[in-house]
Amino acid sequence: MSSKIKDYTSQINRYIDAIKLVKDPKELYLPVDYCLGNGGKRVRPLMALLAADLFDGNMEQVIGPAVGMEIFHNFTLMHDDIMDEAPLRRGKPSVYKKWNSNTAILSGDVMFAMAIQHIARSPEKHLKTILDLFNTTVIEVCEGQQYDMNFETLDKVAEDEYINMIRLKTAVLPAACLKTGAIISGALPSEADLLYKFGENVGIAFQIMDDWLDIFGDEESFGKKTGGDIVANKKTWLYIKAFELANEGQLRDLRNAFTNRIYNPEEKISIVKNVYLQLNLNKLALDKMEQFNKKAFSYLDRVNRPEDKKKELKILAENLIHRKI
Amino acid sequence: MSSKIKDYTSQINRYIDAIKLVKDPKELYLPVDYCLGNGGKRVRPLMALLAADLFDGNMEQVIGPAVGMEIFHNFTLMHDDIMDEAPLRRGKPSVYKKWNSNTAILSGDVMFAMAIQHIARSPEKHLKTILDLFNTTVIEVCEGQQYDMNFETLDKVAEDEYINMIRLKTAVLPAACLKTGAIISGALPSEADLLYKFGENVGIAFQIMDDWLDIFGDEESFGKKTGGDIVANKKTWLYIKAFELANEGQLRDLRNAFTNRIYNPEEKISIVKNVYLQLNLNKLALDKMEQFNKKAFSYLDRVNRPEDKKKELKILAENLIHRKI
Repeated sequence: MSSKIKDYTSQINRYIDAIKLVKDPKELYLPVDYCLGNGGKRVRPLMALLAADLFDGNMEQVIGPAVGMEIFHNFTLMHDDIMDEAPLRRGKPSVYKKWNSNTAILSGDVMFAMAIQHIARSPEKHLKTILDLFNTTVIEVCEGQQYDMNFETLDKVAEDEYINMIRLKTAVLPAACLKTGAIISGALPSEADLLYKFGENVGIAFQIMDDWLDIFGDEESFGKKTGGDIVANKKTWLYIKAFELANEGQLRDLRNAFTNRIYNPEEKISIVKNVYLQLNLNKLALDKMEQFNKKAFSYLDRVNRPEDKKKELKILAENLIHRKI
Repeated sequence: MSSKIKDYTSQINRYIDAIKLVKDPKELYLPVDYCLGNGGKRVRPLMALLAADLFDGNMEQVIGPAVGMEIFHNFTLMHDDIMDEAPLRRGKPSVYKKWNSNTAILSGDVMFAMAIQHIARSPEKHLKTILDLFNTTVIEVCEGQQYDMNFETLDKVAEDEYINMIRLKTAVLPAACLKTGAIISGALPSEADLLYKFGENVGIAFQIMDDWLDIFGDEESFGKKTGGDIVANKKTWLYIKAFELANEGQLRDLRNAFTNRIYNPEEKISIVKNVYLQLNLNKLALDKMEQFNKKAFSYLDRVNRPEDKKKELKILAENLIHRKI
């Protein structure tokens, strides 16, 4: 990791440490501290700072809204974990498990307001633009979560519907972070938009890689057992593509595995993974990921700034996708 | 009701009708429409418009943020109903009952973002001030809800703690609406603050009246059975004051009624109401309410505007407290 990325990450963590809430009612604020302090790579605010750096921006003007978007991200995790019944977050009990759903709802809500408090620290001449971008992004993230939940009950999801869902749920927030850093640092609207597209495509590539790693990742370096998405019947890129490409026999295997409760998890994973391999989805998913990755970099290439200033953003994107961060 | 209040209410309802969401995903937006369309007196945005009128403001500049605060208010109802397990809202099933908790969480979240979209329509030179006021208010409302939930598990709550809780949960939002209308319409900060204090005290008076009506209200004109707060063991001003003033025998009656499950609801209400009457709380609560009401009007009196321009705000406050609206 470059020293600039390390340096900016420290700045972000210092800023977050400084807003630690030691005020009443503690039942409201302890879960906020727990959630914000529970690690995380700070990728989103880092993107805002690196985008600002690309345009020689003033970090002090960017760090407030950058952290605002990190707080918003953590708020979405707090509420999503209730909706997805996810007991763990970054290896520790999620807020709704450690406390309860009501706590996760209300502490989440107060985090949303805190997020906007930090967004409101944008330089006043850019505030309206940044706030509108933020609101649009929040609404899109909610739409993405809704589509993701809808997909659970649908028999068939088309590939472009899936890509649109992960774009909304995962990709628009880092995209908005990059654009925010660029706008505050005086980038032209057209260049800020190129950075947005860069972030959006990196986000989509990241999510497809996530789907791939869940099945084909190296359990040791990945740090968790593979096949969780299969066990949970999760509609991933691989799932959707498999149903699209499968022949009759393979379709029967897939339907059996995903609907038949007699299989134990290992059996289920083995049947599905076998079909995925027969269909060459191992490679096709990486190709698809690489396609979005390339698209992302083509947008970054078009930004009219010196090549060496783009280095860190490229490193960050590569490391993100290949999980070296 | 004055024709000005009627006229402004129609303007608010037209604005809200125009933002009806006929877009996808409908699972996200239908509950938003249901909640926003489910009546309500539009008191908060009305306060913003009347405050603007007091300073000869431009209604078109105020109505966006005014409706933003109404959307925020409806968002809090959607989330509070989950936390409070309230099956009904304005006589219809609450969102979490009609759909489910996850729907109420996520549709609520998207409403929060929509609220800020409309707040962001404030004139740009006032945006930072209005946004900061709004964020502070949201955080206070969350704190109020948390204190209210905390009180459920506490044996003893002091009167000033209770007043502070209802101030946060109920009073700061109308106060912020009034202040917002005043600021956008060019009021001096000192005058905008006087309006804030007016709204804050009206809000507290309103809530004490609410507690009183639940026990001593006329069932017919009040439109619901009295005693619900007693059955639910709710810590109201009357509950708190009763425990403060009761002699040993009365304390025994109160403790018995509130902890003993053998009583049927009517018996429980009768025992508690009897103690309240012995302690003269019927009258003391109205005195307390009147105290905040008077305080509210003293702030409004100090605003340096013609008396006849204050008329509608006074009518609204009086009608609110005495439930004529």
